[in-house]
Amino acid sequence: MSSTLDSNACKLLFTEARTANLFLDKSVEPNLLREIYDLMKWGPTSMNCCPARIVFLTTPKAKARLIPSAFDGNVARINSAPVVAIIGQDMEFFQYIPHLYPHAPENKKVFEDNEFAAEATAFRNSTIQGAYFIFAARALGLDCGPMSGFDNARVDKEFFGGTHVKSNFLCTIGYADSAAAFPRGPRFAFEDVCQVL
Amino acid sequence: MSSTLDSNACKLLFTEARTANLFLDKSVEPNLLREIYDLMKWGPTSMNCCPARIVFLTTPKAKARLIPSAFDGNVARINSAPVVAIIGQDMEFFQYIPHLYPHAPENKKVFEDNEFAAEATAFRNSTIQGAYFIFAARALGLDCGPMSGFDNARVDKEFFGGTHVKSNFLCTIGYADSAAAFPRGPRFAFEDVCQVL
Repeated sequence: MSSTLDSNACKLLFTEARTANLFLDKSVEPNLLREIYDLMKWGPTSMNCCPARIVFLTTPKAKARLIPSAFDGNVARINSAPVVAIIGQDMEFFQYIPHLYPHAPENKKVFEDNEFAAEATAFRNSTIQGAYFIFAARALGLDCGPMSGFDNARVDKEFFGGTHVKSNFLCTIGYADSAAAFPRGPRFAFEDVCQVL
Repeated sequence: MSSTLDSNACKLLFTEARTANLFLDKSVEPNLLREIYDLMKWGPTSMNCCPARIVFLTTPKAKARLIPSAFDGNVARINSAPVVAIIGQDMEFFQYIPHLYPHAPENKKVFEDNEFAAEATAFRNSTIQGAYFIFAARALGLDCGPMSGFDNARVDKEFFGGTHVKSNFLCTIGYADSAAAFPRGPRFAFEDVCQVL
């Protein structure tokens, strides 16, 4: 295997990738949803805790259940996307630590006894897995539109009632209509946000 | 540019990448720190808010300032790593929204007026940028050891005193000693954690 990513791959994932706004009328092959997961699942999480839970909305009927929770600016994006993923977090993720982290199963209790640590770990690690989701989708040739502009409590009630899962963020996926992309925003320079000690 | 990532690149970033435990005695070229940032900065954040702030610890003296804050299990990892990055979050990130998100500068006020939203946005988006950091480092041939086992408040006092930055997580970088890797942990199957509606 090569030891670095070539420039075309860097363009695909980083330097020329753009957030999708609206999408072309082109469906996402159902098997790609599984392929996204089968790439993203390998990314590292704290104690391999893997708290992300994903609901893929693939039909107009399923997306219609999400629309009342979305902020106005995101409704057209959701309607335009062939698939919308709800990236959720299992607040009881620690129940699975004995399985996922077998050399230190006692860490289950650390989180059972410390709600603050459990919440921060669920949020941090489901978010980091959400980033792996974005990169996995891009690796498979899909465009993504991650969004946090929605009513989390309402989504939780609609999709995660009776469970310990809470929504984290949404991500539209499909093939972007590049004509609808926003101008790319500026980024900080290295010196603005990095220090070397 | 190619529209999908080839299998070697998928191995490098996802399927064969492993979390680094201990490192070889091989330094990280200083310019690679800048290259990591210049890749990761392009990843999407909410309203392009870019809240991540990074401190690279590249000398034994700088790492020694971190050691008292680290949980016992992470001390050897920090000592072994040629570079340790502190991934921080600027809790006043919204001050820069008029620059970073010029088509909606008024969103600065949304966060000024809502501390809960500001904190969640800083945490979520600095974390997602931390994931981009990991993938950028891997893209450049480096191995990473992300860690959240440390005393955040103590790190904040030591490295971010007098600023609005708080630590999120740590990430060692370098060239891993593969002999010191842990056995890979299991992952959930698609059916365990994903639903298709």
